Amino acid sequence: MKKSLVYFQSGGPTAIINTSFYGVIKEAKKHEEIDGIFGSLNGVEGLLNDRLIDLRKEDDDQIELLKQTPAAALGTTRYKLSGDIKHEDYQKILTTVKKHNIGYMLVNGGNDSMDTCYKLSRFFAKVGYDCKVMGIPKTIDNDLAFTDHCLGYPSAAKYVMQSVQDIALDNAVYPKSKFVIVEIMGRHAGWLTAAAAAISDKALRPDAIYLPEEKFDLDEFLAKAKEVFEKKKRALFVVSEGIETQLPKENVQLDSFGHMQLGGVSSRLANIVSDKLGYSTRPIEFSLLQRAGTLNITAVDQKEAIKVSEKAVKSIVKGKTGYMVIIDRKPGVEYKTSLKLKRLHNIANVEHKLSEELLKDIHGEGKLMREYLLPLVKDTVKFQFENGTTAYAKLKKVLVK
Amino acid sequence: MKKSLVYFQSGGPTAIINTSFYGVIKEAKKHEEIDGIFGSLNGVEGLLNDRLIDLRKEDDDQIELLKQTPAAALGTTRYKLSGDIKHEDYQKILTTVKKHNIGYMLVNGGNDSMDTCYKLSRFFAKVGYDCKVMGIPKTIDNDLAFTDHCLGYPSAAKYVMQSVQDIALDNAVYPKSKFVIVEIMGRHAGWLTAAAAAISDKALRPDAIYLPEEKFDLDEFLAKAKEVFEKKKRALFVVSEGIETQLPKENVQLDSFGHMQLGGVSSRLANIVSDKLGYSTRPIEFSLLQRAGTLNITAVDQKEAIKVSEKAVKSIVKGKTGYMVIIDRKPGVEYKTSLKLKRLHNIANVEHKLSEELLKDIHGEGKLMREYLLPLVKDTVKFQFENGTTAYAKLKKVLVK
Repeated sequence: MKKSLVYFQSGGPTAIINTSFYGVIKEAKKHEEIDGIFGSLNGVEGLLNDRLIDLRKEDDDQIELLKQTPAAALGTTRYKLSGDIKHEDYQKILTTVKKHNIGYMLVNGGNDSMDTCYKLSRFFAKVGYDCKVMGIPKTIDNDLAFTDHCLGYPSAAKYVMQSVQDIALDNAVYPKSKFVIVEIMGRHAGWLTAAAAAISDKALRPDAIYLPEEKFDLDEFLAKAKEVFEKKKRALFVVSEGIETQLPKENVQLDSFGHMQLGGVSSRLANIVSDKLGYSTRPIEFSLLQRAGTLNITAVDQKEAIKVSEKAVKSIVKGKTGYMVIIDRKPGVEYKTSLKLKRLHNIANVEHKLSEELLKDIHGEGKLMREYLLPLVKDTVKFQFENGTTAYAKLKKVLVK
Repeated sequence: MKKSLVYFQSGGPTAIINTSFYGVIKEAKKHEEIDGIFGSLNGVEGLLNDRLIDLRKEDDDQIELLKQTPAAALGTTRYKLSGDIKHEDYQKILTTVKKHNIGYMLVNGGNDSMDTCYKLSRFFAKVGYDCKVMGIPKTIDNDLAFTDHCLGYPSAAKYVMQSVQDIALDNAVYPKSKFVIVEIMGRHAGWLTAAAAAISDKALRPDAIYLPEEKFDLDEFLAKAKEVFEKKKRALFVVSEGIETQLPKENVQLDSFGHMQLGGVSSRLANIVSDKLGYSTRPIEFSLLQRAGTLNITAVDQKEAIKVSEKAVKSIVKGKTGYMVIIDRKPGVEYKTSLKLKRLHNIANVEHKLSEELLKDIHGEGKLMREYLLPLVKDTVKFQFENGTTAYAKLKKVLVK
């Protein structure tokens, strides 16, 4: 008997997750074993609330545009499934899955989402319901284990490299300039911040990089700040948002009502530099554009997203379950990869962080970071523009009854 | 007798000013009347300190790359020339100009720079020294009088349109999302902020736009904030940095030492919204990338920058002085322009702001803004990449002795 497939998006938006989505639809349509092709709205919430849409009813031209549509076209979620499979959520999901005769489930997300993915696969196995579950990696944090990199990371890394370069050029135009502190996403792993070390021209690389993998010492930071600024009359420091937990508590800003203001790491550090050293500062938070900026989609990221989705769909219809697709990279200068499956229980909740060797490289010449990153970011893609901005997919989102 | 030409950059960086620079070098080389072709480092400061570089010694491939090099390759300045031509600065400039036999001077900048340009032309006329002076318009603020638009504005406007669209898509992925406040440059004129109103898809346009041309009322702002957020469970407000002077003084942030923290307008408003309405907020400041982001250079901006420089060089060797080149646009749907000269004394220190008619349009359907902006932003250019980022011009900067 034919079974239907459901795909959902989970966790933070990226510029590439909808390309994975595109790849799933295109590949799923090639398989006669697959009956309905559904998208769950807002991740697992769509399964809980029976809000699935019929992807066979979407127009081809809009599906094509998914490749240059950032964010998460199906909506996403941070909902955390209980570890206890007796929790009522599982029964709700089972009801939806049975109602729509779903036999294939694809979960597109990062660490937390792979935890959801793992729990679902374990649940179906326990209750003996035949629904295969497979993970598709996605996170700009690049912190999923086993895979060489995560889909979305190359595009976000290109954003960081291009933007830090542009900012470095801008901050060099006056004889005496500002103390610029750029804040980049990554709560526990510094991969995205470290991309700034891969800028090929040393003159445009940051003067200092602060990563969540390392101890942050405010006195050392200020000493470095002084050393650089006194010498160059300008500075460009790059910090990961993840060092926030290491900032002194008393520097939390208060407004005039005495309410605590949770500024970003860059603005808090800028205020400290301004207070202690008297320099004119400029905090810059890359914020949402680093993850959802369309124009930095890289050719490799786009191509790999499609290939990974093909692999996921092919594997799941062959009966594989409880895996995530990983990108396995051959050692050596030439960029060669193959796609493999890795057990979800080895991946869920494991954080892949920067190694000691890479940390040393990032504070040095950045040679290893460049070898790692350049093949992933070197090519861009051609975009379709419409009235001055990139065209994006407008889905009909017809609910499945 | 042959005379030399000096070109300088002045005021804030843009993504296009170095394309004007490119156009000047290319055109100047075609004129036999021109002897040396010099660049003054850091604007008028280079004339004060006799720091000119020989542009004939720069390599062709690097000159070519100026077209995709943001910021200000010669360095820039905010130095303000005295209005009193008896000030010693003028004698210093005259000494430099005489020493290098300069007969042509091109000033590339915005309002303040056209003031410098006007003062210099007036000075040379008064002392009877034969040096022609001509202005080339540049400012992302788009607030120079008479010209339809200023070079650099189309590219910055494209950045605003694309980035607001990307942020709108990102902020729509969760069932309940954040109150996003985007801050855009423009102290006195709201042209750049208003570009957000030109996004063609209404669903991605901001929920509200605040401009420096209008009175800012905090109570009305909060009422609008509440109305939008309660209805949509998300919001995207766009504010010009120029409304800062209208914010309540008591909201200036204090750190725990009681020092005043000058956060941006977006973070101050976000704190007010969070305090008064309890919403989860996300302030986003576009900061330097809106003016110096390479990837948003538009085809029209690039092409016009070259044409304007050609016109400036041709006019100055014909003996014209005391003018700025303006872009004159024919009325009607089709985009047609011609380049003209306008007296600097009519331009210096005049701010061209949004009209009442445009203000109404910006808060409504944005039809006029789209008619105005779309021809300027619709096409992009092809960039040369090198190791993952755009290649940029590296000048030798050989000082003229």
